[in-house]
Amino acid sequence: MHNCGKIAIIGGGSWATAIAKIVIRHTHHIGWYMRRDDRIAEFKRLGHNPAYLMAAHFNVEEVDFSSDINRIVDDYDTLVFVTPSPYLKNHLKKLTTSLRDKNIVSAIKGIVPDENIVVSEYFHQVWDVPYDRIACIGGPSHSEEVAMERLSYLTIGCSDIAKAQAFADIISSEFIKTKTSTDIIGIEYAAVLKNVYAIAAGICHGMKYGDNFLAVLIANAAQEMGRFLKAAYPAQRCVDDSAYIGDLLVTCYSNFSRNRTFGTMIGKGYSVKSAQIEMEMVAEGYYGTKCMKEINGHMRVDMPILDAVYSILYERQGASLVIPQLANRLQ
Amino acid sequence: MHNCGKIAIIGGGSWATAIAKIVIRHTHHIGWYMRRDDRIAEFKRLGHNPAYLMAAHFNVEEVDFSSDINRIVDDYDTLVFVTPSPYLKNHLKKLTTSLRDKNIVSAIKGIVPDENIVVSEYFHQVWDVPYDRIACIGGPSHSEEVAMERLSYLTIGCSDIAKAQAFADIISSEFIKTKTSTDIIGIEYAAVLKNVYAIAAGICHGMKYGDNFLAVLIANAAQEMGRFLKAAYPAQRCVDDSAYIGDLLVTCYSNFSRNRTFGTMIGKGYSVKSAQIEMEMVAEGYYGTKCMKEINGHMRVDMPILDAVYSILYERQGASLVIPQLANRLQ
Repeated sequence: MHNCGKIAIIGGGSWATAIAKIVIRHTHHIGWYMRRDDRIAEFKRLGHNPAYLMAAHFNVEEVDFSSDINRIVDDYDTLVFVTPSPYLKNHLKKLTTSLRDKNIVSAIKGIVPDENIVVSEYFHQVWDVPYDRIACIGGPSHSEEVAMERLSYLTIGCSDIAKAQAFADIISSEFIKTKTSTDIIGIEYAAVLKNVYAIAAGICHGMKYGDNFLAVLIANAAQEMGRFLKAAYPAQRCVDDSAYIGDLLVTCYSNFSRNRTFGTMIGKGYSVKSAQIEMEMVAEGYYGTKCMKEINGHMRVDMPILDAVYSILYERQGASLVIPQLANRLQ
Repeated sequence: MHNCGKIAIIGGGSWATAIAKIVIRHTHHIGWYMRRDDRIAEFKRLGHNPAYLMAAHFNVEEVDFSSDINRIVDDYDTLVFVTPSPYLKNHLKKLTTSLRDKNIVSAIKGIVPDENIVVSEYFHQVWDVPYDRIACIGGPSHSEEVAMERLSYLTIGCSDIAKAQAFADIISSEFIKTKTSTDIIGIEYAAVLKNVYAIAAGICHGMKYGDNFLAVLIANAAQEMGRFLKAAYPAQRCVDDSAYIGDLLVTCYSNFSRNRTFGTMIGKGYSVKSAQIEMEMVAEGYYGTKCMKEINGHMRVDMPILDAVYSILYERQGASLVIPQLANRLQ
């Protein structure tokens, strides 16, 4: 990845669109796999993604669109995966070509279901990609703001720090500042957990707990995240770095946060199903909660906030019962 | 303080009123020093503080009001100081009686000017109160929410943990959860610094930096606070505890925060003077910035956020120049 070669984006959502925008600014050419041909046709016609970040305009002559994932994988060297984690395996099912010699960059914030592993582990274990060819993008990064060119800080994680730097150089600009880290798996887990904690923050907000309480909840979430990461992947890391706590803060406090919005609806008394129907989407933290609960089933780290969110979302326990019990565990 | 004895409040602002409310709930009697007799008369007539937290009603028969600080100090055993830090010395100037045998609880979030020391150091050095009789109240605690009985968590710091617990027992209730700590000076400095950082957050918010940036700023603030505390008072502490980062979060993110509001006005282009006139008050972090800058002048901890806020507030440097420079220091 010292030389990233030709770069392609895999996925068509809002974060994919924001990343495409910051990559193309540097490279003036990208490959872009999207599942739906009608979306590609509309994108070409309009000059922007028809469904997400519509204010982000592209010179479509710089984009090599395709709904054929094999063609994109064959033709490109660095593949930036930006799909929702639950759909990653569906996209890859169509793949008949090898990923072994590719550079993989994961901007997916989630766990791969069934395997219950983070994305870098998945590409390594299932697709035989060596770890020094796998990177991740972390940090507080609401795609809306990145696309609006509001100053944001991203962290590129890779076991090979020179490779992390090579990709960081591709996305750096006057509105994207980057840093590198070798703690790829820690950053990936932080990105999953922060969605769980944003749901918790939303639930409490929806129940009319105040700002004092939310601050304590989020301070405890930072500690809970630190405990889990330390147990799961002992490494030199500072949880107060922006890839960990920064990402947690933006997700828990921002109005752009879909996970917090989902939690708020639950806290106001919506059922999980009706909140999902109302939002016309499933907040990623909904799946993340289940995956993390299962992963921690083996590890047995003390995670009262994760446990509380799981009880509410998956065991049909009322938030009005669970949250006061959680409040007794916080400090 | 194992037995707190008779408790009096020194100060008449909103945090004083909130603390009076939670103490009296337990003790059914308090002494209460306020400077102005007209305010006391109005308080008695109305059954609430005429100027602050007007929704918080008191049974005034449970309150022994006085504008004579000597009388209150003589008659009471535990004195809870809740004045703005710049006015503390003015109140104490009138004192002719000794404080040496009293229990002092500081709920002041600020530095004592001139001496440039935190309140516990001031009572110890200037008023000869032994450290094991001095406690502080920390934690995320917007007084409005405490008075509204919304669940809040306070930390009582005292070198003698049994004494901290004794006062914690006085203020604990179903809506105030308490913990104790021996890191009194660390908690006091955190309470000062968080106001500086809230001004920084406000400035950036006023300049239209987005949520991604704010999260990074606050993550860096948590680290900067950690660096300063470690250098100033090496102790076993976790900056992710609610007395440190929780207090930081509520002040940086909450709409109740006067320091953040002040910063927002500066970020929008108001001068310091006109922002203060418009707000009809001086945000405590304005003084805190100057004190901390002076204190760190000797210590030379790397504190780019403090330095930036100081430049803007005291050296008339434009935020549009200073903040982009600060942004290059963040990560």
